Amino acid sequence: MTQSASASLKNPSFVLQSKDHVSIEDRPVPELKNPYDVLIKPRWTGICGSDVHYWVEGRIGSFVVEKPMVLGHESAGIVSQVGSAVKTLKVGDRVAMEPGIPCRRCVRCKEGRYNLCPDMAFAATPPYDGTLARYYVLPEDLCVKLPENMSLEEGALIEPTAVGVHITRAAGVKPGDSVVVFGAGPVGLLCCTVAKAYGASKIVTVDINEDRIKFALSYAATHAFRSARVSAEENAKNLIRDCELGPGADIIIDASGAEPCIQTAIHALRTGGTYIQGGMGKPDINFPIMTMCAKELNVKGSFRYGPDDYKTAVELVATGRISVKELITGKVKFDEAENAFKDVKAAKGIKILIEGPEE
Amino acid sequence: MTQSASASLKNPSFVLQSKDHVSIEDRPVPELKNPYDVLIKPRWTGICGSDVHYWVEGRIGSFVVEKPMVLGHESAGIVSQVGSAVKTLKVGDRVAMEPGIPCRRCVRCKEGRYNLCPDMAFAATPPYDGTLARYYVLPEDLCVKLPENMSLEEGALIEPTAVGVHITRAAGVKPGDSVVVFGAGPVGLLCCTVAKAYGASKIVTVDINEDRIKFALSYAATHAFRSARVSAEENAKNLIRDCELGPGADIIIDASGAEPCIQTAIHALRTGGTYIQGGMGKPDINFPIMTMCAKELNVKGSFRYGPDDYKTAVELVATGRISVKELITGKVKFDEAENAFKDVKAAKGIKILIEGPEE
Amino acid sequence: MTQSASASLKNPSFVLQSKDHVSIEDRPVPELKNPYDVLIKPRWTGICGSDVHYWVEGRIGSFVVEKPMVLGHESAGIVSQVGSAVKTLKVGDRVAMEPGIPCRRCVRCKEGRYNLCPDMAFAATPPYDGTLARYYVLPEDLCVKLPENMSLEEGALIEPTAVGVHITRAAGVKPGDSVVVFGAGPVGLLCCTVAKAYGASKIVTVDINEDRIKFALSYAATHAFRSARVSAEENAKNLIRDCELGPGADIIIDASGAEPCIQTAIHALRTGGTYIQGGMGKPDINFPIMTMCAKELNVKGSFRYGPDDYKTAVELVATGRISVKELITGKVKFDEAENAFKDVKAAKGIKILIEGPEE
Amino acid sequence: MTQSASASLKNPSFVLQSKDHVSIEDRPVPELKNPYDVLIKPRWTGICGSDVHYWVEGRIGSFVVEKPMVLGHESAGIVSQVGSAVKTLKVGDRVAMEPGIPCRRCVRCKEGRYNLCPDMAFAATPPYDGTLARYYVLPEDLCVKLPENMSLEEGALIEPTAVGVHITRAAGVKPGDSVVVFGAGPVGLLCCTVAKAYGASKIVTVDINEDRIKFALSYAATHAFRSARVSAEENAKNLIRDCELGPGADIIIDASGAEPCIQTAIHALRTGGTYIQGGMGKPDINFPIMTMCAKELNVKGSFRYGPDDYKTAVELVATGRISVKELITGKVKFDEAENAFKDVKAAKGIKILIEGPEE
Repeated sequence: MTQSASASLKNPSFVLQSKDHVSIEDRPVPELKNPYDVLIKPRWTGICGSDVHYWVEGRIGSFVVEKPMVLGHESAGIVSQVGSAVKTLKVGDRVAMEPGIPCRRCVRCKEGRYNLCPDMAFAATPPYDGTLARYYVLPEDLCVKLPENMSLEEGALIEPTAVGVHITRAAGVKPGDSVVVFGAGPVGLLCCTVAKAYGASKIVTVDINEDRIKFALSYAATHAFRSARVSAEENAKNLIRDCELGPGADIIIDASGAEPCIQTAIHALRTGGTYIQGGMGKPDINFPIMTMCAKELNVKGSFRYGPDDYKTAVELVATGRISVKELITGKVKFDEAENAFKDVKAAKGIKILIEGPEE
Repeated sequence: MTQSASASLKNPSFVLQSKDHVSIEDRPVPELKNPYDVLIKPRWTGICGSDVHYWVEGRIGSFVVEKPMVLGHESAGIVSQVGSAVKTLKVGDRVAMEPGIPCRRCVRCKEGRYNLCPDMAFAATPPYDGTLARYYVLPEDLCVKLPENMSLEEGALIEPTAVGVHITRAAGVKPGDSVVVFGAGPVGLLCCTVAKAYGASKIVTVDINEDRIKFALSYAATHAFRSARVSAEENAKNLIRDCELGPGADIIIDASGAEPCIQTAIHALRTGGTYIQGGMGKPDINFPIMTMCAKELNVKGSFRYGPDDYKTAVELVATGRISVKELITGKVKFDEAENAFKDVKAAKGIKILIEGPEE
Repeated sequence: MTQSASASLKNPSFVLQSKDHVSIEDRPVPELKNPYDVLIKPRWTGICGSDVHYWVEGRIGSFVVEKPMVLGHESAGIVSQVGSAVKTLKVGDRVAMEPGIPCRRCVRCKEGRYNLCPDMAFAATPPYDGTLARYYVLPEDLCVKLPENMSLEEGALIEPTAVGVHITRAAGVKPGDSVVVFGAGPVGLLCCTVAKAYGASKIVTVDINEDRIKFALSYAATHAFRSARVSAEENAKNLIRDCELGPGADIIIDASGAEPCIQTAIHALRTGGTYIQGGMGKPDINFPIMTMCAKELNVKGSFRYGPDDYKTAVELVATGRISVKELITGKVKFDEAENAFKDVKAAKGIKILIEGPEE
Repeated sequence: MTQSASASLKNPSFVLQSKDHVSIEDRPVPELKNPYDVLIKPRWTGICGSDVHYWVEGRIGSFVVEKPMVLGHESAGIVSQVGSAVKTLKVGDRVAMEPGIPCRRCVRCKEGRYNLCPDMAFAATPPYDGTLARYYVLPEDLCVKLPENMSLEEGALIEPTAVGVHITRAAGVKPGDSVVVFGAGPVGLLCCTVAKAYGASKIVTVDINEDRIKFALSYAATHAFRSARVSAEENAKNLIRDCELGPGADIIIDASGAEPCIQTAIHALRTGGTYIQGGMGKPDINFPIMTMCAKELNVKGSFRYGPDDYKTAVELVATGRISVKELITGKVKFDEAENAFKDVKAAKGIKILIEGPEE
């Protein structure tokens, strides 16, 4: 068997050189910056819509790729070096890697919401390099050790799972709740299963794609609804009637970012219900604000993940409360990373993992 | 001095006969329905935008005036009869009248959010009669006794004050917060003063009318901002800069219902900030949902008032933490009620009170 | 087969005549007091420690049995008559019966904590009669319809399950938490299983009785600890070490009421942890208040159940998230109720059910 | 005028050499450890009970003075050097100094409760040196700039004020609440005034010393109660009756640490009320746990202060919502520090400030 091209490089890295242009290049091996850091070899990395978006558009909102940037941020890997003050990890430990380093000193960090830190250094968000490389440095406290019963592939799924945990917590899902999730992509599916783990009695998946709906039902949803081309009010009425949501759903999570979904959601909630915006889409949409007002809804945004979300995600998988293996629909070698990006762009499969570079 | 026309009637009532058509007519004196009820003579009643809206449009949303309805719901009065089980009130007591009777048995009532009760019987909301009459019946627990240092006129202001209390609580205003209030009408002004009583350090009033801004500054606001005809993003930047709001406001309350205000508010909040929709306006607006999402804002509707809001409103006035007298810009006799409605429709003054019928 | 003695009575009732003295007597069939009431035939009734306490002591604290009182409050039954305004129930429906009727008008009721209502009329709490009779009247909203897959015997277990739900909610149990439950009697066991349904990763049962510990492990606990006759600090250290609780438990629930348990619990919690007092015992105990203070613990009492707890309990059983059948260790006929009380007093079994009177 | 002895030293420091033995000695000027640090010259330092306790006992609980330690932690000072990454402070700025540096990486730090950080480096808590020296190093984010209208003496009072803010927030004080504060020492007094700033309608000071009660009434309390040598239940009844607390107080704060106060407090709270342990005293006390349980009280410990408390304390003083000047009953020169300690030990005055060393 031929050795891969990357194998000969010191720190092969999958770099977005500029819009539309990626390549594997050698980068210096990063050094531990402080005694709490660890050096990790990422072994599996999932591709996120945002990675693809940077590749295709060269930017997401105000984040613009102005110089070459390593892609990837959904990774699990193996500790290969530890700083002098590291206590809980040792070389060889397998860890899920939380890929954003907050400043730890600003108001948001100190009040427990570091995901809102304005100085966050987040992997594969300009100007910070991502994890699709042989080596990556993280502080010890952002690495969650994987228990023996969890694989590194599952570890790579912890990142989107943590997104689902953060959303589900923001929603305050509790036993007995009815939860509707718009969108049956990776995050929507994970919201379904995490909501179930938090006790939701009824979990309705909503999508327009029959295959995705089928998968969601087999995976975690208890009910499904296929959106139709009717008004948001009518869609909402049908959803409530078909899925027996009584006075409306307790909680609705949008993981689609689509305007008609968001509108339908507001109309389909019960008074006092909770709406979480999880999916990204058009910056501005037509929004039924007076319905929101008269029903005293809680409408919240959810952005990435915060303290304890990664740990909870690992715990949920390790204890069998949720399963993430089913979401892995493809695996490619590091040298084939670009093909994986093409597949994600073409919406093939649910989650494709890229293996770390061969040695 | 001539006695008023109403004086000869048993229970003179100011009735909306149909869209555009009001008249004073005699109605049967209402009877106590259960042993916890009290019969009250409303002495002063403020006019609310919703009263005028029913008069002019004959409806608000799905609430349609289908038969003649007594108007008015912002009242304070004197107890004139008490049911057999009433313990805390006696004839002659002066009370602020909370004008909505919830079912007390539904899920929302029992969980502490009776303002969301689907079977709420609210004064001057079809088909329920309002308080602009000589007599009105309420359960004891919805009457808040006025302390000696409060007038019945101030008592009539408790209703919109309770709206402001409900909004301020939903916003979670606490000492040190910066609070921006869009709209300097009665509810906006009361939100400013209640937010101050809850400890807000900086209270910014935003309006387009210079006189209203001046009044707001003299009344409760610490800063003012005049909206300009620029984009919401630019308005927000200017607001933040002019009022030194740093990373953005902690809390923004909309008491205007105006689309540009709502958009500006979302852009002017800090990450993790809170937005409360208090004002009514167009049912659907263009809304910066992705900004809301990425900043993890809390966006909430506030509807009427719930447990303890009326009592807190009386407490705030009685202890001098807020003052409401300044908002009373006119008083008319019962027989002149229609003129008062015309003034409110013409946006004259801040709050006009109608006196109870002469005896 | 001989018909039972009760069968010939109109409304046979199991009455505590006075301390130590119970008998079955005929009582008038109760009438519906308002249009929202339903008449129920309780079919199965569990015995609670409090029932036995009234029987043995004639009082619990300030509640003194001063006139004969029907015992029993853990019941499920069949609707036999409905009031004119009842909408959600019909004759023949099987329901779990929430046995306390709040006033619905006081501050506590309106803020969503009706279990703290000072005028609560609670079954088998003097002077209110209990449910061990052929007939019992409840308002519609305090009856939770049993789904087809639940038996009436399971329905009788809903009362203590709701106690466990109320405790678990007060504790704020969420996925990933470590929860220690002191006491493996019915409430302690139900706290274990409900905590599991709320996502707790680690559930430690603590008792001094080996059989109870074994049952708890087979039922819902993931770990067990047997208290020893050592200091509370030492017990806590051993508990933390043996059950690998790291910096201490996230949440500790006391369902024992025993002083050494309470002390151990406070020492075994992590900083910022939560302690819930669920069990009843000595009114005053020696309490490590400074440890509580320095660790900023949340210490809360839990009393009965409030809005939504009954419904959630039914939901948990109906969806299979918890199972309560295992707790039923005995069933007796109505005419043998006194024997069942003797067994409970002698601490035989976990939960004994008394069947409703034969017809 | 003779120059002080300290003036000739480089970094004169007030050192607890061992139990009972303090002296002024020269210490090396501390260096900035990271680019976010600033070097401060503390100008005024208040004496806390804990400083005196270390002096008299050589320990507090498990914190034992094993090597000489600089005392003092209630300070305000002037910035004399800034690290390379400092953005918000410059040489000459006047700042209130938050004297505890958390690790910023542990679970508690990241969830927003850094006061519970197990690796907290707190001034004048062994083995960490305090602020009674010419120089002290702090990270920028733990310094709160004093506005022009605040003196450095007021700045030194921010530390105990932040303690009061943390307690008041833990208590959830809001407009309309009745708040009882046991103990009218510095922290108790500050709790009274901060509770008022948070909107409490009724603030009852409880003490046994008539002079302290008088001062508390003149300072911030609206009512006073003098504890008597009767049972806790009776004391509670009298307190409720004399201060017209209706069904009991909404919130009770203990700033005394005294067993009879704590017991009285539990009996004097309404159902669902909140108790905060702020004062330090005997480690274990006799506690009415069943009353706590049946009333579903929230009992919480409060320890030091967390995110935003210092900033809020400065804000409260700067905006005039509270005043702290009245609490300063004495000022001494640095070289007379030991005398100040003697006065505090003898319970003379409320708060004595020690000036920074002369240059």
